[in-house]
Amino acid sequence: MAEPRGIMDPARLATTGRAEAFSDGVFAIVITLLVLDVRAPDSAPSELLSDLLAQWPAYLGYLTSFLYVGVIWLNHHALFNRVQRVDKKLNLTNLVLLLTTAFLPFPTSVLATATQDGDPRNISVAVALYALVAALMCASWLLIFSYLTRHPHLLTGVDGGFFARERLRAWAGMGGYAAAGVLGFVTPVAVPLVVLLALPVFYFVTSHGLTPKPQARPS
Amino acid sequence: MAEPRGIMDPARLATTGRAEAFSDGVFAIVITLLVLDVRAPDSAPSELLSDLLAQWPAYLGYLTSFLYVGVIWLNHHALFNRVQRVDKKLNLTNLVLLLTTAFLPFPTSVLATATQDGDPRNISVAVALYALVAALMCASWLLIFSYLTRHPHLLTGVDGGFFARERLRAWAGMGGYAAAGVLGFVTPVAVPLVVLLALPVFYFVTSHGLTPKPQARPS
Amino acid sequence: MAEPRGIMDPARLATTGRAEAFSDGVFAIVITLLVLDVRAPDSAPSELLSDLLAQWPAYLGYLTSFLYVGVIWLNHHALFNRVQRVDKKLNLTNLVLLLTTAFLPFPTSVLATATQDGDPRNISVAVALYALVAALMCASWLLIFSYLTRHPHLLTGVDGGFFARERLRAWAGMGGYAAAGVLGFVTPVAVPLVVLLALPVFYFVTSHGLTPKPQARPS
Amino acid sequence: MAEPRGIMDPARLATTGRAEAFSDGVFAIVITLLVLDVRAPDSAPSELLSDLLAQWPAYLGYLTSFLYVGVIWLNHHALFNRVQRVDKKLNLTNLVLLLTTAFLPFPTSVLATATQDGDPRNISVAVALYALVAALMCASWLLIFSYLTRHPHLLTGVDGGFFARERLRAWAGMGGYAAAGVLGFVTPVAVPLVVLLALPVFYFVTSHGLTPKPQARPS
Repeated sequence: MAEPRGIMDPARLATTGRAEAFSDGVFAIVITLLVLDVRAPDSAPSELLSDLLAQWPAYLGYLTSFLYVGVIWLNHHALFNRVQRVDKKLNLTNLVLLLTTAFLPFPTSVLATATQDGDPRNISVAVALYALVAALMCASWLLIFSYLTRHPHLLTGVDGGFFARERLRAWAGMGGYAAAGVLGFVTPVAVPLVVLLALPVFYFVTSHGLTPKPQARPS
Repeated sequence: MAEPRGIMDPARLATTGRAEAFSDGVFAIVITLLVLDVRAPDSAPSELLSDLLAQWPAYLGYLTSFLYVGVIWLNHHALFNRVQRVDKKLNLTNLVLLLTTAFLPFPTSVLATATQDGDPRNISVAVALYALVAALMCASWLLIFSYLTRHPHLLTGVDGGFFARERLRAWAGMGGYAAAGVLGFVTPVAVPLVVLLALPVFYFVTSHGLTPKPQARPS
Repeated sequence: MAEPRGIMDPARLATTGRAEAFSDGVFAIVITLLVLDVRAPDSAPSELLSDLLAQWPAYLGYLTSFLYVGVIWLNHHALFNRVQRVDKKLNLTNLVLLLTTAFLPFPTSVLATATQDGDPRNISVAVALYALVAALMCASWLLIFSYLTRHPHLLTGVDGGFFARERLRAWAGMGGYAAAGVLGFVTPVAVPLVVLLALPVFYFVTSHGLTPKPQARPS
Repeated sequence: MAEPRGIMDPARLATTGRAEAFSDGVFAIVITLLVLDVRAPDSAPSELLSDLLAQWPAYLGYLTSFLYVGVIWLNHHALFNRVQRVDKKLNLTNLVLLLTTAFLPFPTSVLATATQDGDPRNISVAVALYALVAALMCASWLLIFSYLTRHPHLLTGVDGGFFARERLRAWAGMGGYAAAGVLGFVTPVAVPLVVLLALPVFYFVTSHGLTPKPQARPS
């Protein structure tokens, strides 16, 4: 959309426009598809209310996955505000991030189904699956942060050291989700679920980076 | 897409481009997914016409939810024409608005199914569910309006007082939907349905704000 | 996306950016959802090939609806190249166009199912349903053309007379689809299907308007 | 989005903004819809893990099709970086490319189902179907490359000869997929699957064209 062409080879170092637009599209679709797992029950007369209440794990799954994808979008937004140029390998690592994000509705659905059915062994497996996919997503952030650390000429406003520090956040996520996956097998349901819910909150709070910055003032 | 960077910290006060693009994506997907609840019947010979006619609540549900989401989009469009900068908390309140909007296909489907089945108790519950989700959406508008009232440096062309007055519209919606939910239990089906249909019309008519403005003239 | 603000009240006469982005989103989703009606058969050993061949109406439905929505997008693109400003009523007529377009997967699915089942009465009804929805879409183009005829200050590069002439194309479509709907009840299947396929070709050929224009030359 | 109007007839030679946005939308939706074919199993107590493991072809199908569509997007991105203006026929060839891409979830689902069921005849047919659709997609790239070769005034930064050479890549794909389709009938399952996986890698490596270029340096 009328984006300025690269000053060198335009096809090798492109501006971030289309990578952002494509990613926004994927995030918007993933976040909206989540509602397809909340289905209208086929209720007998007078039983709609109890049927609706019985599928509370589906609502909880929608709520948490929606906020999680929203937080990923916020982080992606903050990331690309610091990226000036996109090369082929950055596009590839971005695709890996989108791949793990777009897969999220599947473990969400598995976890909601297992929680609703109530079998403890299946819930443990479902928690582990969710934790595995989420940890892979953190690993894809690590790929991106590491790549940007080594290619500071793609950045704007920060240097490579900024993203070297950001890698801590990705490692924290991988550790947290690994812990949640293990906890799913050794303690009651509630503990690992709380960990799964807490990690997106951590990513929301730190979405602009771990480095403290002076507060922006009104212009 | 070649958007001008913030004059201060670009990552903390971003322009509205990506927030608008992401929201447009979610609105476009929600509005288009609504058709998935209108299903081709599996008809016996010569019975397609009667089968098609029998699922009229699905068409009505499509029509009303499509127009409702369209009106939300118009309001969102008018809102962001008055917003110059987006900070993290505005992004979060916007996510809450998208969360309630993207959930709308579910109560729509429940209401269409209940209306088609015809059980009065289930219809009452379905009306209440629809009214609850719609009222939560109004509450998310209230969050946004209140936040902008207190952060006028994010605005352009209007001052914080404009959005202080806009809060009236959100309160009107919450009151209206609460009334519709209660009416669903005490009167015939038609009255609450009319209320559900009337509220989007109200939001369409007032989508540019309650404050009267001089009519724009041709340039 | 850093779009220039209106020179008058920015909220009442907005530039076309978000209306185009939102419409593009809807068109892109509608065109992509069409594949969901082409389902992988659950085949017994060695029977996949015959099962795949048996569902040819689904492929034909995908092909024709994809090209139809693609042609609508081309027309929409050409339309908005001649629109400079969007007001509330133009947004509303555009929503009506999107409403009819987003509904298209439903009659497509009904027509593909009826053709595959082979019952002649059901095919007639399905043809009529498809023709009805397509005629309503032409009517929504008529709404847009008529509105732009009466509001030439929203245009760029052409005057109101251009869109007065464009109305002929919308009337042609409504007539053509009405004819296809009637033909579906009086002649074999092939004739109305050919009419349904021919009308998008007409709209493709005339997507830049009926008025002859000098051929653009290389710059 | 505030795109500069064509210097000649704006409606006949438009800038690439909306064609890119529309294509990005379709790619984003196709790539995200792929997850809908990975379904949460309805497991008996303690059997979730084995059920999840049994549907490995669905995960493999998701992975490969996601990366394939991602590679198509990268190629499309690189293509439009070299296109300055879009005319009606280029839009049409682009629509044909989108048509074949948006159809990809169907052969992916058929191939995953057949691989999971394990019947060798059905797998051969499914491989052939996948290869056929992928070869048609290569043919649509050939259409685009040939059209741009003959219309160099639409290009920027390269001449028509660039796209004349690019046609080799499309022919290579058609040959490769034809070979995979035939191999599916004559050798074990693994060989054609490897070919199906290798071709996207080829398109990723060559996404900026076959012509060697000097390496871009930091600005």
